[in-house]
Amino acid sequence: MKRLLVIGIGAGNPDYITMQAVKALNQVDVFFLMDKGPSKDKLIDLRRDICARYITDPAYRFVESHSPERARGDVDYTRAVDDLNRAKQETFEQLINEELADEQCGGFLVWGDPALYDSTVRILQAILASGRCAFEFEVIPGITSVQALAAQHKVPLNSIGRSIEITTGRRLAAGQVSDTDSLVVMLDAEDSYHHVADQQTEIYWGAYLGTPDEILISGKLKDVAAEIERVRKAARAEHGWIMDTYLLRKP
Amino acid sequence: MKRLLVIGIGAGNPDYITMQAVKALNQVDVFFLMDKGPSKDKLIDLRRDICARYITDPAYRFVESHSPERARGDVDYTRAVDDLNRAKQETFEQLINEELADEQCGGFLVWGDPALYDSTVRILQAILASGRCAFEFEVIPGITSVQALAAQHKVPLNSIGRSIEITTGRRLAAGQVSDTDSLVVMLDAEDSYHHVADQQTEIYWGAYLGTPDEILISGKLKDVAAEIERVRKAARAEHGWIMDTYLLRKP
Ligand SMILES: C[S@@+](CC[C@H](N)C(=O)[O-])C[C@H]1O[C@@H](n2cnc3c(N)ncnc32)[C@H](O)[C@@H]1O
Ligand SMILES: C[S@@+](CC[C@H](N)C(=O)[O-])C[C@H]1O[C@@H](n2cnc3c(N)ncnc32)[C@H](O)[C@@H]1O
Repeated sequence: MKRLLVIGIGAGNPDYITMQAVKALNQVDVFFLMDKGPSKDKLIDLRRDICARYITDPAYRFVESHSPERARGDVDYTRAVDDLNRAKQETFEQLINEELADEQCGGFLVWGDPALYDSTVRILQAILASGRCAFEFEVIPGITSVQALAAQHKVPLNSIGRSIEITTGRRLAAGQVSDTDSLVVMLDAEDSYHHVADQQTEIYWGAYLGTPDEILISGKLKDVAAEIERVRKAARAEHGWIMDTYLLRKP
Repeated sequence: MKRLLVIGIGAGNPDYITMQAVKALNQVDVFFLMDKGPSKDKLIDLRRDICARYITDPAYRFVESHSPERARGDVDYTRAVDDLNRAKQETFEQLINEELADEQCGGFLVWGDPALYDSTVRILQAILASGRCAFEFEVIPGITSVQALAAQHKVPLNSIGRSIEITTGRRLAAGQVSDTDSLVVMLDAEDSYHHVADQQTEIYWGAYLGTPDEILISGKLKDVAAEIERVRKAARAEHGWIMDTYLLRKP
């Protein structure tokens, strides 16, 4: 039987790696690297660094794969992600069939935690359900960008006894959020915090969390929203890409 | 200046500890252990084990403190937690003042991640705001029970492009939840999944996650709700306490 390990490597700081992940890394024969877009090189380098740092026997290899890109612009989002995942599924099947011998172990290094806005687990489950490849797989959790955000700002995610909602910039902009007092926003390409009506809301914003480029800004929206927009734009121009996350807490 | 480290140790498996947490553990002179309730002994033992396993220089000590208990029964929940936190705040101030010399480092070992339904960070911020003690502090994230749940069931927390709500059993029972399709429930003393109307909802339930006693059950509510209630009751009777978490996914 082939084995696959979906390993959360944490969202930025190489020290976010867990002991469980280190043990998992050391079982892998072939690592599949699938990043895409402008952040590709940096994120792939970080994965190679983690392997070099934590794997004791260097008898592993990397297979880099050109991950298909999601259709952008005026298309249905869920449909576009679905199509993308189908294309990814074919790529994964091919990798598992062609790059992995029987009894070998393949590894996917997932940014942050595999359970949070990442398609690797969903795709592997779909492949298993299709019956087109046979393998066992395990999931190893990793520190998410949400946790990095809360830790660096030294704030709890929830108010006492209340809920937390984790959502996307797209949903916030479209008003598709509940009235929870603690809202975490990820995948925001468009400064969607400008859509929040109550300017007394506290925002805890973080970019490149856990990395040497980390930026933190917090305060009431009325005081810091313009600053965040400016800093964000400048950082994106400087790095060529940005990853940022924020917590919105109602007064 | 005194230093405090609030260290997330992960929610069950000792291998959930991160490299960052290991480095932090090794800086601590005095560990404050604050557990209470029936799970106290087990959880304190686990913290001592983690220290013994990962700290290279054993020149540290433990201070165990009798953490005040929250008022139960017919009282306002937020008020009771508030009162409890005020009592805890006094305990913390005393510990910091009496047990920690200047330039020393104190450590709080928090189950899971300090940002998720834990009061340590909130209390330290309140002490700093009161001006009654001076110290620096840092927060180190840890793998939450929510992540352990998703990893062990090998499921994503979110549906594609959708939100996740994390809430308490109390709120679910009171109907104080949004209509999100992915709802994670913690702190449920009363089988609140029975309050979910749609019996086609999938539940991914886990108890003692990451520990040798781990139990996983999943399926549609109509098929597994009765089984979960039975297994949960038996496990609680056997161990004297239970910690469980579940993900509800709408069809
Ligand atoms: C596709 S999702 C993957 C999330 C990842 N699985 C996790 O656990 O954090 C990518 C989004 O995560 C957030 N993100 C990831 N890493 C980040 C970091 N180091 N700093 C800030 N945000 C980050 C951003 O919101 C980004 O748009
Ligand atoms: C006070 S909260 C603390 C949560 C913790 N800070 C975390 O990050 O998971 C305690 C609740 O967490 C959940 N929990 C913690 N550890 C767990 C475990 N090992 N298995 C299942 N649930 C767990 C249960 O819902 C429990 O009622």
